[in-house]
Amino acid sequence: MRWENLTQLKSYSKLKEAARVDVPAVMSGESGAERVKGYDIPMGGGLEFNYAARPVSEEILDILQELSDEQELGAKYEALYNGERVNTGENRMVLHQLCRGQLGNDVFDGNVNKREFFVEQQRRVAEFAGKVHGGEILNEKGEKFTTVVQIGIGGSDLGPRALYLSLENWAKVNDKLKMKAQFISNVDPDDATAVLYNVDIEHALFIIVSKSGTTLETLTNESFVKDALKKAGLDPSKHMLAVTSETSPLAGNPEYLDSFYMDDYIGGRYSSSSSVGGAVLSLAFGPEVFEEIMAGAAEEDVIAKNTDIRKNPDLLDALIGVYERNILGYPVTAVLPYSQALSRFPAHLQQLDMESNGKSVNRFGEPIDYKTGPVIFGEPGTNGQHSFYQLLHQGTDIIPLQFVGFRNSQMGNDVIIEDSTSQQKLSANVAAQIVAFACGKADENPNKCFAGSRSSSIIVGDQLTPKSLGALLAHFENKVMFQGFTWNINSFDQEGVQLGKVLAKKVLSKNTDGALTEYSKLLGIF
Amino acid sequence: MRWENLTQLKSYSKLKEAARVDVPAVMSGESGAERVKGYDIPMGGGLEFNYAARPVSEEILDILQELSDEQELGAKYEALYNGERVNTGENRMVLHQLCRGQLGNDVFDGNVNKREFFVEQQRRVAEFAGKVHGGEILNEKGEKFTTVVQIGIGGSDLGPRALYLSLENWAKVNDKLKMKAQFISNVDPDDATAVLYNVDIEHALFIIVSKSGTTLETLTNESFVKDALKKAGLDPSKHMLAVTSETSPLAGNPEYLDSFYMDDYIGGRYSSSSSVGGAVLSLAFGPEVFEEIMAGAAEEDVIAKNTDIRKNPDLLDALIGVYERNILGYPVTAVLPYSQALSRFPAHLQQLDMESNGKSVNRFGEPIDYKTGPVIFGEPGTNGQHSFYQLLHQGTDIIPLQFVGFRNSQMGNDVIIEDSTSQQKLSANVAAQIVAFACGKADENPNKCFAGSRSSSIIVGDQLTPKSLGALLAHFENKVMFQGFTWNINSFDQEGVQLGKVLAKKVLSKNTDGALTEYSKLLGIF
Repeated sequence: MRWENLTQLKSYSKLKEAARVDVPAVMSGESGAERVKGYDIPMGGGLEFNYAARPVSEEILDILQELSDEQELGAKYEALYNGERVNTGENRMVLHQLCRGQLGNDVFDGNVNKREFFVEQQRRVAEFAGKVHGGEILNEKGEKFTTVVQIGIGGSDLGPRALYLSLENWAKVNDKLKMKAQFISNVDPDDATAVLYNVDIEHALFIIVSKSGTTLETLTNESFVKDALKKAGLDPSKHMLAVTSETSPLAGNPEYLDSFYMDDYIGGRYSSSSSVGGAVLSLAFGPEVFEEIMAGAAEEDVIAKNTDIRKNPDLLDALIGVYERNILGYPVTAVLPYSQALSRFPAHLQQLDMESNGKSVNRFGEPIDYKTGPVIFGEPGTNGQHSFYQLLHQGTDIIPLQFVGFRNSQMGNDVIIEDSTSQQKLSANVAAQIVAFACGKADENPNKCFAGSRSSSIIVGDQLTPKSLGALLAHFENKVMFQGFTWNINSFDQEGVQLGKVLAKKVLSKNTDGALTEYSKLLGIF
Repeated sequence: MRWENLTQLKSYSKLKEAARVDVPAVMSGESGAERVKGYDIPMGGGLEFNYAARPVSEEILDILQELSDEQELGAKYEALYNGERVNTGENRMVLHQLCRGQLGNDVFDGNVNKREFFVEQQRRVAEFAGKVHGGEILNEKGEKFTTVVQIGIGGSDLGPRALYLSLENWAKVNDKLKMKAQFISNVDPDDATAVLYNVDIEHALFIIVSKSGTTLETLTNESFVKDALKKAGLDPSKHMLAVTSETSPLAGNPEYLDSFYMDDYIGGRYSSSSSVGGAVLSLAFGPEVFEEIMAGAAEEDVIAKNTDIRKNPDLLDALIGVYERNILGYPVTAVLPYSQALSRFPAHLQQLDMESNGKSVNRFGEPIDYKTGPVIFGEPGTNGQHSFYQLLHQGTDIIPLQFVGFRNSQMGNDVIIEDSTSQQKLSANVAAQIVAFACGKADENPNKCFAGSRSSSIIVGDQLTPKSLGALLAHFENKVMFQGFTWNINSFDQEGVQLGKVLAKKVLSKNTDGALTEYSKLLGIF
């Protein structure tokens, strides 16, 4: 397999030379209508990916196809799901997709069939959740647990939290909310204190999530919870479970009701599909809802195998993103879901994308001379329209936009004001924004002038359900993976987080000098 | 007064020529310690602004001082608070600071002394809140109200929500939480439905916030609430109040218990200091807490009058930001509060900054040829460390960082693990991050190499209290204002939000063609 830097590819040189697209022109009139109808690809979970308003032409798409072929993106994905150690820096396989389906060959680690291992963990989680819901696992008073609290940080928090919030209201109206979930993540003592302040601790189960079993924030917050349980006269070992690796100090420890396992082949930011997401979501919504999320993700993973970029929304989204980043020079991408339920989905994507592809060396550890991952941010529409959209429309940098929209609300409650429902207003706004961003508007007064040419795509579905949510999750994971392959970087390590950890330990052991000493004084640490 | 484009200034040419600072060098060893001690300015509310790790030298600071003088930034601020119509596009004064103090001359609009007007609204809000808390204003059953729900979007939502969340836990432990506050903003029908699902509606007061009284999202959500009240057998006029302008249809309307006023001289994103923030925060925490927030902001506003940039943290932060944006070419700024209570403060700053300074024309409506406002994003630390910090440390763009930290937690509950409290761990992490970002670390393996030179500053305080929060709010408002003056743009209009509104109306009236029709079909609107 070829592993070449982006700028070494012949197709990349061609891409630089390709005629730029005049987005306002092609998105106007009949041409615009044709683009919206034609530039639309089915996704998993009943979603579709519409890229009419991205700055691509047939010529550019052809070159992106060449680039995909030249960089062997399809073969690299295949290598990944067949268990090749594509996480070169750490010499690890990358197996989150095995949690949701068997995409290729069986994958073994020594004698262990990894798919079987992940499925077994899911079965154990489902069994445990069933016992909690069914009243076999009860608190000391023999009462049912009503709340589950996840204690974890980074990937053990952002993904599971975003998914929980995405489905909490859906679950309420569909009678699927078995337990309310809360989350403790920050080492800020006020985070744990505030959550514990509100939790009915007697009826709460706590999940400690740490792969190594040594994450400082998580262990600290665990001890907050243990203190609170003891103060309430409760036995912590009857209220806690662990999600960790089999070799960690948390594994099989009698201090927990049970422990469920992930491993080093699933990075934190990709771990929502493992027990990290599985335990809390199965407890909150029931195992069958978690299975539906996985089924939607698995559908998307299969679609991502297609080497025809025009039929593979994950690959195409990735390649257009690279075009926007490296040829057009756009530094940031915004994620704008028109769904309040997706309020924390952008925060998850921020980690997924920026931690995976915020790299300056290639997969062999050699410095590279081109831009990699952009900054990712976003808030739900229509809220964002009344906030930062001013800059998106009229600012001095172009920010490509990734919209998400649904035809129906989750809760089905609506009102008609001025002849339309709120859901129609919501959808009308996202339709309007795409066209406004793409086409702009001339005006004699430059202050009222919109240049247009603001790139966007939209993912559309009937409703945000477990299945469509799973496909959405997998779409972005796969997009990030394909971009990493395109940039020839390792999307699965995170060496950039190490230095801060080392220096924080120095501060806590008072082994500092220079600026570090002075900042420590300024902050009142010593 | 001179109103010149940035690139026309002599000092700007000098700035381009100034020697760049080698941040890793100056931040190392004794030099670094001296910078941390020396580059520190007192702020309002007991805060301090430390800019040791920003890429400035004495030479650059001298030129920034020249730039401030040449662009007459102090005089422009003076003109603003003395009531000059600096919002040129809309021919309006900019008076949010008058809500918190009298900085200069009395300001009149016709015969109305505007400071007296704002103070009177605050007095009326305080009186109303006192009656609610004291049991003079009760629900139909003669019971006390326990919850307040703000219905507003953009500036009527983000600022007040961020401030409420900033103090909710502080209020709980200091016996100041009079009423729990919730917020409905999005036109997504699930937003209102979900909030109403959880609210004890019989004991809830709803504040409708819309300056014009015509904001579609807000009126739609109001009708959701009215429906819910009626369904519960309650009289909406006994549960609702309005914050609006005196000329709006909501003003003095018998459908509300009362109405409180702002005006066109306070933009939405600057309106937390007006009744928009005052009503909900006074009801939630009591009027004296809101007064404390305003007192902290007023202190900062006074400090912002100093024309010596080395003694004015708001002005200096603004100027260094312009240096980073226009000379060093950094496209994004991250806001990273090491305080879970500030979890939504970055979302407020995102609106404040991006809506104010995301402009491509100068204050006279003429196109400009230099970069203006950057993208703003952020999440609380330490959470961000386990998420997007990878890109901040090792990505291919440098992102300047604005840290915020406190010496003490708000709730005072803590545990000692491995010889340190959680609060010490939190502070140790922010100290470590600043040094890691600034100094970096060499390594034979480029994948473990940190280039450093990542600019940051930190605002430090003893504790996040109403007063320090007010100063923090005003700091960023003033920074944004000074940057707008520096760029010679109007930070107080938002023409960029208009086109989307017009097109959304077209969709809802089915008056569409081309791409807009097709997107409307795709989204199932028609």
